[in-house]
Amino acid sequence: MQRCDILGAISEEPGRLTRPFASAAMREASARVDEWMSEAGMNVRRDNIGNVRGRYAGASEDGATLILGSHIDTVRDAGRYDGPLGVMVAIAAVQRLHDSGTRLPFAIEVIAFADEEGLRFGSTYLGSRAVAGRFDEAELRLTDADGVTMAEAIRAFGGDPAKLATDSWSGDRPLAYVEVHIEQGPILESLGLPVGAVSAIAGQSRYEITFTGEAGHAGTVPMDRRRDALAAASEVVLRVESLANTDDRMVATVGKLEVEPGAANVIPGRVTFTLDVRHPSDANRSSACGAMVAWAQKTAERRKLEVETRPVSERAAVSCSPRVTALLREAIGEGAVEVASGAGHDGVYMSEITDIGMLFVRCKGGISHNPAESVTTEDVGVAIDVLGRFLGLLAKA
Amino acid sequence: MQRCDILGAISEEPGRLTRPFASAAMREASARVDEWMSEAGMNVRRDNIGNVRGRYAGASEDGATLILGSHIDTVRDAGRYDGPLGVMVAIAAVQRLHDSGTRLPFAIEVIAFADEEGLRFGSTYLGSRAVAGRFDEAELRLTDADGVTMAEAIRAFGGDPAKLATDSWSGDRPLAYVEVHIEQGPILESLGLPVGAVSAIAGQSRYEITFTGEAGHAGTVPMDRRRDALAAASEVVLRVESLANTDDRMVATVGKLEVEPGAANVIPGRVTFTLDVRHPSDANRSSACGAMVAWAQKTAERRKLEVETRPVSERAAVSCSPRVTALLREAIGEGAVEVASGAGHDGVYMSEITDIGMLFVRCKGGISHNPAESVTTEDVGVAIDVLGRFLGLLAKA
Repeated sequence: MQRCDILGAISEEPGRLTRPFASAAMREASARVDEWMSEAGMNVRRDNIGNVRGRYAGASEDGATLILGSHIDTVRDAGRYDGPLGVMVAIAAVQRLHDSGTRLPFAIEVIAFADEEGLRFGSTYLGSRAVAGRFDEAELRLTDADGVTMAEAIRAFGGDPAKLATDSWSGDRPLAYVEVHIEQGPILESLGLPVGAVSAIAGQSRYEITFTGEAGHAGTVPMDRRRDALAAASEVVLRVESLANTDDRMVATVGKLEVEPGAANVIPGRVTFTLDVRHPSDANRSSACGAMVAWAQKTAERRKLEVETRPVSERAAVSCSPRVTALLREAIGEGAVEVASGAGHDGVYMSEITDIGMLFVRCKGGISHNPAESVTTEDVGVAIDVLGRFLGLLAKA
Repeated sequence: MQRCDILGAISEEPGRLTRPFASAAMREASARVDEWMSEAGMNVRRDNIGNVRGRYAGASEDGATLILGSHIDTVRDAGRYDGPLGVMVAIAAVQRLHDSGTRLPFAIEVIAFADEEGLRFGSTYLGSRAVAGRFDEAELRLTDADGVTMAEAIRAFGGDPAKLATDSWSGDRPLAYVEVHIEQGPILESLGLPVGAVSAIAGQSRYEITFTGEAGHAGTVPMDRRRDALAAASEVVLRVESLANTDDRMVATVGKLEVEPGAANVIPGRVTFTLDVRHPSDANRSSACGAMVAWAQKTAERRKLEVETRPVSERAAVSCSPRVTALLREAIGEGAVEVASGAGHDGVYMSEITDIGMLFVRCKGGISHNPAESVTTEDVGVAIDVLGRFLGLLAKA
């Protein structure tokens, strides 16, 4: 918790926490993480993308490796726990092994990923994509708000953009990737539980939908002659909500909506809005999206508007490994629950190179991406204990 | 029509028609109107607010006065007819009297109002308010976008802001105020009629409504834990529409709606929108507003949000005089219809000093406040004929 406070004060902006990829704040945070990893008996290196990777050797040199990790970059005006908490809990668990002189049958590599949120370049998961060998070199040409390319940023941070391929996992398949993270939702809090295993990371679809009707004078165009784009969009907002309400594993959100021309005395001629749909089952997500888009089209037809429904992005759900999750549940003990993650995590890409598992920690009010993010010392203690027991169970498995 | 074209080319902005109060463009337009009034046998003066007032004497000096008029200022990127057409038709009708040497038992004063749209100072009806004796001197301190006060603008235009009270109508109550204006709506077009009498200028209520719920992560907050401000606003948008649909004399519009924080992956925490309700009956308007505001409150309660419903402005309906309107209908002839005006007009204030009547001219697609504003030469000819017959009927009445 103290370490989360220390990292929480390392920011690019005065008065609030904003720690983007390859920034001066990230350099300072990485140095502290390096120090803590070293104290816990790990050999530490920084790879080319900027991940801090600490290796705690196993009992023998030819054993497999378990990867623990999370990210240490943040969104703008962030809380202290989304990301860093998982790295701190992993280091604390290794510290206990180190303090007791314990060597497990496998090595542990703790990775503090350099970018998960994508704040600086608008491209997420840079750290875990580099490790998973899924980094796209075309992205090196992306520029930040100041016109600095990603290649330049990596070089300035000490990495070699030409050697990113060497960051990717080589050698044997890792035993697993396990990440501790705040829940970012209210379910554990409502169940009165400090931690829970994660069943899957929900898949996600994003659309941008535009209704085009006809602007007109709010005083002179009779109701039955209107082609009001906002009324149509309102129907879709409510339909999206009611469809999502029919399935308690689905969430669907219209988060952004813009009205043109947007004057009190003008009938809305055009409305553009986003649709974000998430579900741990890809089939369910896909059929819900189909129903929502069809409703938008039906609404346009009925109201004599034009509609454009543009898919913006799609990400399949990632299931956590039943084997890893079963061990996590056993480590939690009686009454252990599994919850799905609506947010994306580094495990999305790590699942391409190994089995993944996640442990969620209860957070106050389910709030994240906000300075009000809050976890209790007791819950974090439970998470460290559970991770420690998980390591013991994995050693025996 | 040629004169509307000439005025339509006199603008403050290259390539589009924008003619605000007391501008250089208005000086030039006023000079042309002065010239045309003089040609039609009128004595012309410009009053302190900047209205161009042409007087065509009656048969005797002690007869009453009929006022004809409309405004010659425009909105930004305006059409050519909203305002100027009414002044041109009035001048044309007087020109016919002058050409035939006819003197009526009453004098006619044609007023080209200096401001109805309120583009420059955000304060509407400056011209007709000065004539009606309803000018508010506090407004002289209002400033335009360049920091020029209204008092300075009036002085620069040649008026004396200290003498605005002398612009107000003095002497006997005028016989009536009659205004010709484009309909700005699609009713005459759909009925296949060139002109129609106006029954009333609708009253108008404006509200600003804000729902405050709770922003949250679009992936992690379950549907049943959300307090989504946009879903609440959508319910109100649809309720406003369905309530307005129950009464074909009412129009109601949500024209502006803003979502905060307005990101695709964040549940809307706050939505602010406008509500504009118009009806020729104040009682109906008031009860509809009550129902709409009550629905917003009920929605907030059911969804556990906060709501603020702030009345922004209210303007009572103004009925056209049955006597004047009956004469206009008689002048139109068989099949004459009456339509209500959803937009405001100078008659709103002129009704405080005399009986008012209005004649609407069909316009293409009901479009106004737009360069696409369009009327036909034939319809304008009908309007001039009707106004001429009206003058004859009034002379006999």
